[in-house]
Amino acid sequence: MAATTTYLTGIQTSGEPHIGNYVGAIKPALAAVESHDTKYFLADYHSLNAVKDPEKLRHDVRSVAAAWLACGLDPARTLIYRQSSIPEVFELMVILTNVTAKGLMNRSHAYKAARDRNEAAGASDLDGGVNMGLFNYPILMAADILVMETDYVPVGRDQQQHIEYTADIAKAFNHHYGEHYAFPIPQGVYPEGESSVLPGIDGRKMSKSYDNHIPMFLPENRLKKLVRRIPTDSTPVEAPKDPDTSSVFQLLRQFASEDQAAATRKRLEAGGMGWGELKNELFEVLNATFGPMRERYTELMEPGSALDGILAEGAERARERSRATLAKVRAAVGID
Amino acid sequence: MAATTTYLTGIQTSGEPHIGNYVGAIKPALAAVESHDTKYFLADYHSLNAVKDPEKLRHDVRSVAAAWLACGLDPARTLIYRQSSIPEVFELMVILTNVTAKGLMNRSHAYKAARDRNEAAGASDLDGGVNMGLFNYPILMAADILVMETDYVPVGRDQQQHIEYTADIAKAFNHHYGEHYAFPIPQGVYPEGESSVLPGIDGRKMSKSYDNHIPMFLPENRLKKLVRRIPTDSTPVEAPKDPDTSSVFQLLRQFASEDQAAATRKRLEAGGMGWGELKNELFEVLNATFGPMRERYTELMEPGSALDGILAEGAERARERSRATLAKVRAAVGID
Repeated sequence: MAATTTYLTGIQTSGEPHIGNYVGAIKPALAAVESHDTKYFLADYHSLNAVKDPEKLRHDVRSVAAAWLACGLDPARTLIYRQSSIPEVFELMVILTNVTAKGLMNRSHAYKAARDRNEAAGASDLDGGVNMGLFNYPILMAADILVMETDYVPVGRDQQQHIEYTADIAKAFNHHYGEHYAFPIPQGVYPEGESSVLPGIDGRKMSKSYDNHIPMFLPENRLKKLVRRIPTDSTPVEAPKDPDTSSVFQLLRQFASEDQAAATRKRLEAGGMGWGELKNELFEVLNATFGPMRERYTELMEPGSALDGILAEGAERARERSRATLAKVRAAVGID
Repeated sequence: MAATTTYLTGIQTSGEPHIGNYVGAIKPALAAVESHDTKYFLADYHSLNAVKDPEKLRHDVRSVAAAWLACGLDPARTLIYRQSSIPEVFELMVILTNVTAKGLMNRSHAYKAARDRNEAAGASDLDGGVNMGLFNYPILMAADILVMETDYVPVGRDQQQHIEYTADIAKAFNHHYGEHYAFPIPQGVYPEGESSVLPGIDGRKMSKSYDNHIPMFLPENRLKKLVRRIPTDSTPVEAPKDPDTSSVFQLLRQFASEDQAAATRKRLEAGGMGWGELKNELFEVLNATFGPMRERYTELMEPGSALDGILAEGAERARERSRATLAKVRAAVGID
């Protein structure tokens, strides 16, 4: 993966991220900027499938964009744009439908999961509640990736099938039109080993769907309250404690320095450090980590902030590539 | 249907039309210009599904555009544009997928016909050979229609389901977003009574698929030869003949003046007019009708002709409407 290869990250626009998203997705994705030609896009049209409330969609997209910028995405060194700013994506999708077998879509995990849910619920129509946005999702994703002539797509293992479908669709196009134009075949880049799973405030994996998450940009006083709510056992202050079974400590070690984490581990194991004190320490560490990001986020969320300009400039730069790709594709299929 | 209602005609780009297309589709479609705000578009992306040869697609699209212009489509009084020149169509299609039930597509006639063919052929996979261009076709057609805020769509009865689907999809959108923006619900305008079916040179209905058609723009000598090939019986010159069972006469009466057709009918019924003379008359009438159109067509098909400029100007004018519609739709769904 040389620096001239394109490394494209799609960002779900599902509202303000939590600190688990930061550790599991945002921080590793931003690390790629150091060594690759990276692009990041906000998959706002993908969200339309689930979000039919325009105000919420509008807010969620701004919020996610502001969050990534607050987390350190530097528009001068990389590229961030909205999917909806790239009309070439949608035209390419229409072109790709003509080389995409319906059978491929029938076997898509997301679609099959919807049918399985219908079957389990005893529905007579297994396609009940399935819309064509869901069914076409893999083709839209292929267009997102191929329009940028992407080489590598860093994604979770749950997205592996979509990357394979994109490669299949690209190969089908190349089979028909390869003498005129051929897409590079993109590859997924998957996290190695277990992805670090952060515990939520109830001890289960942190997830919005469990409502046990710590939002990244909580105001200080609400952050403090939320940390205090993390359940702990009734071990007295003076008793030794096992850091490895403590959610509070597991959270702390993700954000504290190694030295600080080691020192706190020692104090817990020795006894004399209570849960309350540990929670205070966690709050301080979270606040130190996310406080400056929260400020930047809040600034960017103000109406008239730099956010719109950054996204508009990102779109303009992204379209240099998408326009060039689409021109080649149109010429190859005979629409020019 | 007041003159301010929009009347949108889609044109299949399946190559040079024949004289049956002229009588059955082109002439009646152009008559609408007199009383409606008409728009005509060349459905070039719909053709991609069947035509994977870029040279052929390129030629077919130019040929069909030149044919309609040669037939009298006046770009100063109406509008002709290529579907592929309107990026808003494809973005709108992506938006519409999110309000389109997959079940609707499952019941599409074109899709079901493909499954029936597979079933009849004993295929194990009924979706074999079906691509997503075919499966999504009704949504792309809905986008073509809705992006122009069309009121009326003149089509054949075989397209009735597509118009109903477009109305269903528009209503689904309006249901979700109607307080922000609602599409006008388009209606089909279907031919009244039997459509006039022209006989081909073998006496069956004229159709490219029977290869019995008379192309509109044949050079004079080839037109003459083709007319001579129309089979006739061996009734001698002097015997009376029944005009109503003669393909040659049926073709003649479509293109000759009423007076000329009546006079020829009389001569045939009286006896003394041979098939050869009738064929010469048909040739003269066809040549008089299509000769000037052929000249205009040939001019337009020259590289560097006025054709590209006409289509580019049509696209620019069409996009005034499509851009305005998409801006309203984007604001309604929350992508803006």
